[in-house]
Amino acid sequence: MTKVFDQPDEFAATALAGFCAANVDRVAAVPHGAVRAAPGNQGKVALVIGGGSGHYPAFLGYVGAGLADAAVAGDVFASPSTAWVYGVAKAANRGGGLILGFGNYAGDVLNFGAAAERLRAEGIDARILAVTDDVASAPRAEQPKRRGVAGDLAVFKIAGAAAEAGLDLDAVMEVADRANRATVSFGVAFDGCTLPGQAAPLFTVETGQIGMGLGIHGEPGIRNEKMVPAAELARMLLEPLLAERPDNHDGRVAVVLNGLGRTKYEELFVLWHHLTGLLDAAGLTPVQPEVGEFVTSLDMAGCSLTITWLDDGLEEYWSAPADAPAFRRGVVAPQVAGERVEAVAEVEAAIPPASPESQKSGACIAALILRLAEALAEAEEELGRIDAQAGDGDHGQGMARGSAAAASAAMKAAEAGAGAATVLSLAGDAWADRAGGTSGALWGVALRAWGQALSDQSAPDAATVAKGASDGLDAVVRLGGAKIGDKTLVDAFAPFVESLRAATDSGQDLPTAWAQAAATATEAADATASLTPKLGRARPLAERSVGHPDAGAISLALCARVIARELAQG
Amino acid sequence: MTKVFDQPDEFAATALAGFCAANVDRVAAVPHGAVRAAPGNQGKVALVIGGGSGHYPAFLGYVGAGLADAAVAGDVFASPSTAWVYGVAKAANRGGGLILGFGNYAGDVLNFGAAAERLRAEGIDARILAVTDDVASAPRAEQPKRRGVAGDLAVFKIAGAAAEAGLDLDAVMEVADRANRATVSFGVAFDGCTLPGQAAPLFTVETGQIGMGLGIHGEPGIRNEKMVPAAELARMLLEPLLAERPDNHDGRVAVVLNGLGRTKYEELFVLWHHLTGLLDAAGLTPVQPEVGEFVTSLDMAGCSLTITWLDDGLEEYWSAPADAPAFRRGVVAPQVAGERVEAVAEVEAAIPPASPESQKSGACIAALILRLAEALAEAEEELGRIDAQAGDGDHGQGMARGSAAAASAAMKAAEAGAGAATVLSLAGDAWADRAGGTSGALWGVALRAWGQALSDQSAPDAATVAKGASDGLDAVVRLGGAKIGDKTLVDAFAPFVESLRAATDSGQDLPTAWAQAAATATEAADATASLTPKLGRARPLAERSVGHPDAGAISLALCARVIARELAQG
Repeated sequence: MTKVFDQPDEFAATALAGFCAANVDRVAAVPHGAVRAAPGNQGKVALVIGGGSGHYPAFLGYVGAGLADAAVAGDVFASPSTAWVYGVAKAANRGGGLILGFGNYAGDVLNFGAAAERLRAEGIDARILAVTDDVASAPRAEQPKRRGVAGDLAVFKIAGAAAEAGLDLDAVMEVADRANRATVSFGVAFDGCTLPGQAAPLFTVETGQIGMGLGIHGEPGIRNEKMVPAAELARMLLEPLLAERPDNHDGRVAVVLNGLGRTKYEELFVLWHHLTGLLDAAGLTPVQPEVGEFVTSLDMAGCSLTITWLDDGLEEYWSAPADAPAFRRGVVAPQVAGERVEAVAEVEAAIPPASPESQKSGACIAALILRLAEALAEAEEELGRIDAQAGDGDHGQGMARGSAAAASAAMKAAEAGAGAATVLSLAGDAWADRAGGTSGALWGVALRAWGQALSDQSAPDAATVAKGASDGLDAVVRLGGAKIGDKTLVDAFAPFVESLRAATDSGQDLPTAWAQAAATATEAADATASLTPKLGRARPLAERSVGHPDAGAISLALCARVIARELAQG
Repeated sequence: MTKVFDQPDEFAATALAGFCAANVDRVAAVPHGAVRAAPGNQGKVALVIGGGSGHYPAFLGYVGAGLADAAVAGDVFASPSTAWVYGVAKAANRGGGLILGFGNYAGDVLNFGAAAERLRAEGIDARILAVTDDVASAPRAEQPKRRGVAGDLAVFKIAGAAAEAGLDLDAVMEVADRANRATVSFGVAFDGCTLPGQAAPLFTVETGQIGMGLGIHGEPGIRNEKMVPAAELARMLLEPLLAERPDNHDGRVAVVLNGLGRTKYEELFVLWHHLTGLLDAAGLTPVQPEVGEFVTSLDMAGCSLTITWLDDGLEEYWSAPADAPAFRRGVVAPQVAGERVEAVAEVEAAIPPASPESQKSGACIAALILRLAEALAEAEEELGRIDAQAGDGDHGQGMARGSAAAASAAMKAAEAGAGAATVLSLAGDAWADRAGGTSGALWGVALRAWGQALSDQSAPDAATVAKGASDGLDAVVRLGGAKIGDKTLVDAFAPFVESLRAATDSGQDLPTAWAQAAATATEAADATASLTPKLGRARPLAERSVGHPDAGAISLALCARVIARELAQG
């Protein structure tokens, strides 16, 4: 278990500070991440990687020449927020476009995706690179649904080398996508890990058993098997990967044998001894194989094997020099002394100038969000109770925390003279930052998109508000991936938007249109009781949730009604 | 616990093979160790390091330019045998002399010391470098008694850089000794590690407690303390080291924060964050600090802090480039392509030519050792019973295993035409190799020294045999460090030798002299029942052993009687 920490919720931030201090010659601290101390060439594509903490050397240990330009560190096993990703990416930008790389987990998909949208809105070309190497998490035909595990290293190494070589953004993305499609991993767990401050492990594996295909945060695996000698374990790790060998492949492969934290080096070398024979027998030639700890999971016991089916281009980039705190290969050409990045502290967002009308609207929006926060604080327990019927029961807390932060940010922005667009956008950012979890990120995305539909130069009319709601829904669907019927907040949000647009299109005033839409949303939210969840790793929850409405839909309808009451009172 | 292995007793050897396979570009496999694939300059001092396995990256991971020339890998937490150290050192020799570096543990002191003697006997100047950094294991005034822990890295790094810089053997030893005297470490344990194949950990630390100053193999620490937050733990680690700051030191220090296996990177970074503040407050400037896993202890939970009080010379060598599988710093000048070491397999020792008389003596010696092995096999259980009264009860097994191997090697050598000196020396080597443990190594040392006193050109007379016994005793005392009265085999061996020399000096024939000496040894062995042990970490055993004789002394007397009977029968 994790033993060394102060306050558990400070663990990841303190570790980041310590990492930067220990590598002060190599990296510069930026808020929630690190960038290279000696930045890459001006105009190069910048690779920004990240995800939850607890996986070191992923991701901070890979910031360096020939690898990543920056890394974002979320809390332990939690995606960094959209604002964190956005901020680190901005600091890493060298003018050649950005690639945001992460393992394919719902929270990361959402936050890196939303950050990429914000960057593109500012004219910075940003792409996302979701690594999908874990063969145990989805069948071959559904590779885009697979999780990212230690394949992160192979894909980021190759993408980083391509970026360092001076390829343009399209070309680096092509190489990175090719590397990701060619990369497969299979992992086993012998025992779970324990988060800072927790008394019990996140999951356990019975003594004498192996959890086959278990994910690096305790995601369910394929099955349990009896513990076997190392020679047999090597075969078990390799077999699922050999099954995915591309037709007519020449057998040159990048290989990463990765320890998850408590399975130590000598154990990995014992496995590697057996793997060399098995690889040879399969006609595979490991190119610059890596045996060690690359993507850990705190002190989890277990290991994974990764293979990248190389082609000439991929082999060149896999073999290229790299020099990062936790990964060195060959000799990187020395940096020309000169430009050096210094650590930067967090700065407040600048408030763009606004017209008096829009400032007034901004103040109204801030007041509405404050009322929302009061209502969600009152409803916290009830929402938690509804969520606990099917999920982990933290929805009420997340909504209360997120709305309170949004209200505070909105009030502050309004007091500083922000217009309607800025107040609502900043409220969304604060919500996502503080609420945590998927629903927090989605509320942040929705409010920001909604805010972007408004203006800082005029007061929004009913049609503009409806357009903003529609943009917010689009962003939620685009980044969250949920469709109507999946039993998510979309099941209430989509009918709300449709109703609001129809009413405003037909010329109704905002209070009337909104009241109708809120009623529609409420009805739709209640109706989610008849649905079963479609998304995520909710299979064990699916049965429990039958007959209960979705907490996200219920809370969205509640918010709609609160605003409706306020609008009705003028 | 260690999960990945085949047969537990093959673990270390398989891990070594896997390590060499994973680093085939960097190291070449030699029997029981690895050497640099691209050897250092001809004529350079070669640094050979090693010890038990289970501590990776110590020691194999440090073979490379600017660091070690070779490493020897013993079994898990067990010293490599004298022959293993000797063999790897021979392979690493570049003509400039050898430094054999290891952590200061009894078995390593013995085997690396005995190997150095063998090398010197062959005209290769070999020195030993026992790292003594663990402040918890002995007070400052008794630094030479301290154990070696993660200070290994600092001392070997500095010694390796000095050797790479081309200093001669005396000069490198002076730097290495200075580095060792300037290096202090303090460690804590949160939980024990489990050896391959064992169901229970080697030791445990109660939940919520910290074992202060606990050694890396579960050696007893100073005391237990209540678990504390990381900020306080940082202070606990640093305080005992600050107490040893040399007078008027300028504060420039090498620092190594080392995780023992299960205490992971982010936890170490959290500690480092706090340590930077504490070091600064103490007026210390860390030079190229290292935070990570450097000397582990399988999956033990815990960490240690090491400080080397630098001077200008030590700082230069600490900061110098290095390039090993597990440690890189700066950029090492590229090796001139050309000489490359290939993996070598174990080879049989060559049998030097011998005179017919000496060959006949060799055959007699082999027959005597065979008789000894039969007697020790019979006595195995009884010796185990005696040992169990005060120790771990494995003495009978070790003696039976060692003597059987010695008999087999002696017979084989005699059949191949070896003379007396060679037969007895090879028997000693085989005994040490197979018996394991301190007593096995001491028997090996004694027989080899005894053999060296004989000749391959003539049959030994009584005086020569007695001289050989005396040389054997000297070697045991010199390498084992025991004095008369310490309750070891020396308490029987010394009176045996004294009696044998006196009798042969006064002109008695060998059978008569030997019979007297055997009787003296038996009396002395029985008399050890009144002694208490003085050596090693035997404090809890000391009380138990009162009133019981020492098993090592008893078995030596038994061997003396067996040979006496054989000599009496001609």
